Amino acid sequence: MAPPSAIEVLPETDTSTFTVPDRLTIQAIAKRRAASGKLIAGVAAAADIGSFKGRTHHLHKHLANRWDHRLTAEAKSRGGSSLKEAAKFLKQPGLISLGGGLPSSEYFPVEEVTFKVPVLGTDTAQRHAVLTAGKHDMASGTSDFDLATALQYGQGHGSAQLLRWMVEHTELVHNPPYRDWSCTMTVGSTSAFDIALRMLSKPGDFMLSEEYTFPAAVEAAGPVGVRVAAVQMDEGGMLAESLDDVLCSWDEKARGGRKPFLLYTVPTGQNPTGSTQSLQRRKQIYAVAQKHDLYILEDEPYYFLQMQPYTGPDAPDVPAPASHQDFLASLVPSYLSLDTDGRVMRMDSFSKVIAPGTRVGWITASEQICKCYSIHADLSTQSPSGLSQMMLFKLLEEHWDHDGYLDWLLHIRMEYTQRRNVILEACEQHLPKEVVSWRAPSAGMFHWLRVEWHKHPDYPRKTLEEIEDELFHANMRHGTLLMKGSWFCPDKTVANEKMFFRATYAAAPLDQIREAVRRFGEALREAFGLPAASNGH
Amino acid sequence: MAPPSAIEVLPETDTSTFTVPDRLTIQAIAKRRAASGKLIAGVAAAADIGSFKGRTHHLHKHLANRWDHRLTAEAKSRGGSSLKEAAKFLKQPGLISLGGGLPSSEYFPVEEVTFKVPVLGTDTAQRHAVLTAGKHDMASGTSDFDLATALQYGQGHGSAQLLRWMVEHTELVHNPPYRDWSCTMTVGSTSAFDIALRMLSKPGDFMLSEEYTFPAAVEAAGPVGVRVAAVQMDEGGMLAESLDDVLCSWDEKARGGRKPFLLYTVPTGQNPTGSTQSLQRRKQIYAVAQKHDLYILEDEPYYFLQMQPYTGPDAPDVPAPASHQDFLASLVPSYLSLDTDGRVMRMDSFSKVIAPGTRVGWITASEQICKCYSIHADLSTQSPSGLSQMMLFKLLEEHWDHDGYLDWLLHIRMEYTQRRNVILEACEQHLPKEVVSWRAPSAGMFHWLRVEWHKHPDYPRKTLEEIEDELFHANMRHGTLLMKGSWFCPDKTVANEKMFFRATYAAAPLDQIREAVRRFGEALREAFGLPAASNGH
Repeated sequence: MAPPSAIEVLPETDTSTFTVPDRLTIQAIAKRRAASGKLIAGVAAAADIGSFKGRTHHLHKHLANRWDHRLTAEAKSRGGSSLKEAAKFLKQPGLISLGGGLPSSEYFPVEEVTFKVPVLGTDTAQRHAVLTAGKHDMASGTSDFDLATALQYGQGHGSAQLLRWMVEHTELVHNPPYRDWSCTMTVGSTSAFDIALRMLSKPGDFMLSEEYTFPAAVEAAGPVGVRVAAVQMDEGGMLAESLDDVLCSWDEKARGGRKPFLLYTVPTGQNPTGSTQSLQRRKQIYAVAQKHDLYILEDEPYYFLQMQPYTGPDAPDVPAPASHQDFLASLVPSYLSLDTDGRVMRMDSFSKVIAPGTRVGWITASEQICKCYSIHADLSTQSPSGLSQMMLFKLLEEHWDHDGYLDWLLHIRMEYTQRRNVILEACEQHLPKEVVSWRAPSAGMFHWLRVEWHKHPDYPRKTLEEIEDELFHANMRHGTLLMKGSWFCPDKTVANEKMFFRATYAAAPLDQIREAVRRFGEALREAFGLPAASNGH
Repeated sequence: MAPPSAIEVLPETDTSTFTVPDRLTIQAIAKRRAASGKLIAGVAAAADIGSFKGRTHHLHKHLANRWDHRLTAEAKSRGGSSLKEAAKFLKQPGLISLGGGLPSSEYFPVEEVTFKVPVLGTDTAQRHAVLTAGKHDMASGTSDFDLATALQYGQGHGSAQLLRWMVEHTELVHNPPYRDWSCTMTVGSTSAFDIALRMLSKPGDFMLSEEYTFPAAVEAAGPVGVRVAAVQMDEGGMLAESLDDVLCSWDEKARGGRKPFLLYTVPTGQNPTGSTQSLQRRKQIYAVAQKHDLYILEDEPYYFLQMQPYTGPDAPDVPAPASHQDFLASLVPSYLSLDTDGRVMRMDSFSKVIAPGTRVGWITASEQICKCYSIHADLSTQSPSGLSQMMLFKLLEEHWDHDGYLDWLLHIRMEYTQRRNVILEACEQHLPKEVVSWRAPSAGMFHWLRVEWHKHPDYPRKTLEEIEDELFHANMRHGTLLMKGSWFCPDKTVANEKMFFRATYAAAPLDQIREAVRRFGEALREAFGLPAASNGH
């Protein structure tokens, strides 16, 4: 086995900051749109994504790396559809097409859909607006999108109407530093990950990931023959040194698979650990990715669940960002915004900030990768639900626009800050610190609690798994459900040394979160033979 | 090469009929529902599909064949999700869960959605109903389904609320003749086909299909390494004798792949030929499938586009079916309804009868296959859009119910009958019968026109492909677009002997269909050097 080679990582004392350079501004979006004229995108229209980015803004940047050496035979064999050859003829004036097998929209049994949505303001929850989508709003000039188009067949990349908003939002938030970045819609990041695996990995391959990770990613990878090579973490997420070490010391024979090049990471509010990689950590990891020519799958459902700093139970809260500019500047820069090489496929999701049931998201990557993805989607998932796209279009584009969406994200940020503060205060109050410890999460929905299982009376007679299972059931007896940390280990063959439980503060009402934590404290004290809490109820 | 062995096919003179036996009636559905009580299915609830079928109605039937010998390693390696272990604990009374990472529905920025839908009746297009879905309709007792549930994460099999309707509808229409049939939702049949391929075929395999077939199926199969073995057709669709012949004479070495066992067919209103397999033909093909242990993928988007018999321009129309019973009895029985072995996966779609943009459909197959499918979906497509499911639930369950949906299907049937009649009458009137011939389609959206290319002045100097391309462009010059038949050949290495063009009567307004056909006639006369039509405009 080759000795691990040291990598040049930025020193731990590095305090460099990074602001996404030359971000598109909301004002500039309006100007760009005015200059490019009305968006006309009829049934199953191919989107001119380059035009949504602005034709000149990116020309000075260099092109993304090519990934031909990483794409699978499946991905490389995908060509265009032969029937689409016919589509190019459709623009001929006066042509009557008996070509495409699309049903007439006169038989769609929905004339109009309305969405009642909240209006943020002083009396937040009380005011509403009703957004209306009609069947022929495009013909009547009422809107750029209508039901006759949304409910018809579409493209794998989704409707041009909603995709334009996604491209602009991506430029506003991340402004990728290479020229030929692009976006394409997904039916959610679960599907995007599945498609990415089929584009980029062969049976027998390994994928790199955090040592505690999202089980669905592991369970999606397994059946397509992809195993997980775990990278160690600390409180700040994946460790660049460990990543480099795993790669430098990779032994194909011992591992039974070629050296991995696919890195799956949830950099912000990671599931299950709640950890968020700092800018410095991201730069370090990106440098390792460059050194080993990795391709990074950046899964970021929790990106906009970055919260206000935690000040503790007795200090005043930090005021909300004063402006959209401050808000955007407060976000830890994404891999996408650091991605000079085009080696990142970022998966964005509405699940945590709008609703999971839309089953609409998008990826951002180089044109080569986006094209591969959308051709794959054309013949599998097809386009996301037209009704979901319509709801998002009405909300994001026509009701909120970019400004209003940032307001909504700020609203969600403050709500999650409050929820996070409640669980932390309850932990301070109710948990026995002799046996359980934690760090305040700065993003996401998860609180990761470390339990000193070596202090359990049954240690060392019982294993970690046995004691963990007992504690899980002790919690249940006390009426609270927390997830076992071991459920999140991608490599079941490695014995855990530390014990964790995952609690979420996203869903339960605040008083129930407090009560659940109190019960957890009670269960721990009982299990570890500690005296009952003096403030026990 | 082994000589083709004769198979026992039903004689061509067989006139046996088949009525789906012991169909569930709409009245029985109401009784069954009343007996089983209110459907309670909260967030991401696992559906008890067996209970939707009725607990005793199928007990006398035998179980489906097992398909372990056909399932891929990918399909077989899929297990349950470890996090779902926790879900079974959620029923404990008084439990507070900090487990599942679901966002709170209080942050879904949609309080209410309405759908304005037509009410069928004397003044069809004018009357409407408005269907309303609120966020907490389940808590308030207003509905069995609400936005808090629909917009949350769901199961791969879709919501219990809509799935129950699908199971009942399937029993009403097809009543599969084995015990353990089941249904699971899809995000459309394109995705269902993609998933089925990954469940049932390995790279290098062949799939059997009609010699003219849906290009997207071929294009989806290619990248996963599956080639198409073409089966010959006549006007009545796939030929059982040809299917048997292909299989009996299969030469692994010459073909470079194992003997196929996957049969992809569009039995009704086939794309592109518009052909519909008769009951007799289906029985013959099913017998061949049994003989060779095939697994059948029955793709049926056009099933409910079965039309009234064509009586010609001068005979009176056949009156619409007088009752739902007559309507159901008029439909050619599906493979599913003949499937004594559980060797059919039927793909149902709303694309042609509601709208393609819902991206919701379902499959019906044995429990083993449905389970494989839904576990796959859990980790790829996830559940279909909750908003689409809600629209369909409101429309199919709460607004129409089974009765009203059959009314809607009858309405669509009569509309397509009219469209089909218009194109046939235009063909009679405008096309030069010396060089073009056709049969009246009895289902679907496609009219398949055979052109006698041997009569073209450039024959035999030019190839079929050259003349086909010239005719395509001649049509374009005359202002009409028809699809080339060669675009629908799955095996590009086989030279075509016949030339076809595909026209659809589904989309264009009726007068434009007439005009397009007139132009096509004009183009043909010009190309073949025939005198201009006497009734030319």
